[in-house]
Amino acid sequence: MNSPINRQWRVAHYPEPGELVGRRHFEWNETSCPEPGDGEFLVRTICLAPGPAQRGYLKAPDGGFLQGLQIGAVMRGRGVGQIVASRHPDYAVDEIFIGSLGWQDYSLQQPRGAEFIFSTKKLSAPLRPLSSALSFLGQAGATAWFGLREAGALQPGDNVLVSAAAGGVGSMAVQIARLSGAGKVVGIAGGKEKCRWLCDELGADAAIDYRADDIEASLADHFPNGIDLFFDNVGGDVLNAALNHLALRARIALCGFISTDYAAGPLHGPINYRCLIDRRARMQGFVVFDYWERWSEAEQALLDWYRAGRLVNCEDVDVGLENMPDSLASLFTGANRGIKVCRVSADPVEIPAA
Amino acid sequence: MNSPINRQWRVAHYPEPGELVGRRHFEWNETSCPEPGDGEFLVRTICLAPGPAQRGYLKAPDGGFLQGLQIGAVMRGRGVGQIVASRHPDYAVDEIFIGSLGWQDYSLQQPRGAEFIFSTKKLSAPLRPLSSALSFLGQAGATAWFGLREAGALQPGDNVLVSAAAGGVGSMAVQIARLSGAGKVVGIAGGKEKCRWLCDELGADAAIDYRADDIEASLADHFPNGIDLFFDNVGGDVLNAALNHLALRARIALCGFISTDYAAGPLHGPINYRCLIDRRARMQGFVVFDYWERWSEAEQALLDWYRAGRLVNCEDVDVGLENMPDSLASLFTGANRGIKVCRVSADPVEIPAA
Repeated sequence: MNSPINRQWRVAHYPEPGELVGRRHFEWNETSCPEPGDGEFLVRTICLAPGPAQRGYLKAPDGGFLQGLQIGAVMRGRGVGQIVASRHPDYAVDEIFIGSLGWQDYSLQQPRGAEFIFSTKKLSAPLRPLSSALSFLGQAGATAWFGLREAGALQPGDNVLVSAAAGGVGSMAVQIARLSGAGKVVGIAGGKEKCRWLCDELGADAAIDYRADDIEASLADHFPNGIDLFFDNVGGDVLNAALNHLALRARIALCGFISTDYAAGPLHGPINYRCLIDRRARMQGFVVFDYWERWSEAEQALLDWYRAGRLVNCEDVDVGLENMPDSLASLFTGANRGIKVCRVSADPVEIPAA
Repeated sequence: MNSPINRQWRVAHYPEPGELVGRRHFEWNETSCPEPGDGEFLVRTICLAPGPAQRGYLKAPDGGFLQGLQIGAVMRGRGVGQIVASRHPDYAVDEIFIGSLGWQDYSLQQPRGAEFIFSTKKLSAPLRPLSSALSFLGQAGATAWFGLREAGALQPGDNVLVSAAAGGVGSMAVQIARLSGAGKVVGIAGGKEKCRWLCDELGADAAIDYRADDIEASLADHFPNGIDLFFDNVGGDVLNAALNHLALRARIALCGFISTDYAAGPLHGPINYRCLIDRRARMQGFVVFDYWERWSEAEQALLDWYRAGRLVNCEDVDVGLENMPDSLASLFTGANRGIKVCRVSADPVEIPAA
């Protein structure tokens, strides 16, 4: 048989501090498709999910939290795919697989346990479209679910603020908070259109346009009794403003800091952290992969809400492996709305039960 | 009878931002001693406890967390005293009383409940010297106790860092952590002498001299596996450095931020708060008066350790009401060592059981 071509994006340059990540940091490559060795299987990529954390792979390996990639390495990224060849007894051809596929058409895989970004699993009864496994049933959904419940200790009646609320995790956090019996749910997003979308389609009670509105004044307006739970994806000025409007015993679930993470120049911390004392409040960092063993808890609840028509799967789909650099870049420019996924190949017509 | 003279310190000026608090902000006054009305009783001050938070009273009343005082008002402050006249059926002459006496010889009092800084109680079997009720059995002890256990969720074996460790709350936190079965206990203080004192007399495993040592390098040295619990009294650069050395699931109990609270000019937040995410760690603010109902829990444990000779009552005593402004100022210059109290009059020879 003629081996198919394996198209890939490899790391070409590391971005400078403050530089937006984009196409120039990657190099397109076409190579032959590898063959599985003993205990391995070959997966054809169906969808990939770009995530802000992937920006962190673009650095020399240093043993840190996000493991850097050598120049020339295939870009790392989670995805859903189908097994097309197997030399592993438990993984059959045609089965659907989720794992660290990389930005490429084909990857060799083997089963891996709960190891952070490399964890793998077979999907026994996947929902269509298969991108669902990367969107509302994937990392975005689980991050919002465990962040609100565990780090944020969400209680019924809590008044909840979500930053980057029109982003992947944020759009799930808005919906999960609402469906979990929160009091008021307010999202912060960039632009009127996203704000409208949050209120009209995701059920937010209000939205703040950080580009046009006075954030402090809006927070005072929407939270006369203070914010009970702030799910924060952005850090920086938004976090600092929110700290001034906390209710007693408020919780801030720290999910990310996309506003400052890769900024150039001196960074400023949230000086209003001092409000944590008089509000008896906390900031709690979390990482979704710590909840890998409990993933099905989130999955089941989200699936139930989705099937009942109460939760929107707000995928924002790009098409084509060749567009992955732009898909990633869109997360940092606010060009996405909802959960960004990139479709690399079509869903198979038939999906076997695993 | 000739009414005794009531000496007082009144608020004369509010300090500017960044200005050290001192004698010039107060005005000495001598007036006649008031007489109790119905339901009131008169208390003669025995000891007062200056605390960093008192700096916060020196501002116009604004409804904030620390209630400001008008110019001309008697300076607010907690103290222990003896009842010398009473028109309240439950408060008898000679009984020992703790409450918001103010910086003066005599004050009119009435019973008050668990209202923050104004809470009052009679001491039924007070320990001598009576200053103990303001020092290790007082706010310093309870703050360290509840801060470590509640905000800090202290676990046996935790490696603990305490900032301003030679201060009132800090010196108690070092001892309580050690006596509660912490792993390593390290204090940060200013100067060799205080560092020696922490190790030789309070049982710290090590001390870092923030004036002479490289804090980051020292933390790396003392906490090769990271800090499990940081009891922070200072904020600023020390907090920022500690954030870089947290263990997984670390807790920071935020008690105060004396290093930055009254600084002039632009303040910088702890930019390294971003470590909270990859360390799955938290910063938890707390206020000791929330635990007023559980105060006896701390008191009993501390008293037991004290009587067993395992805990040092490290009072740092000034003598004379006239020295109160300097006593308060010493907290901000690092001139104190241990729990600052100011003795206004002698302990009574006989103390009746209440």
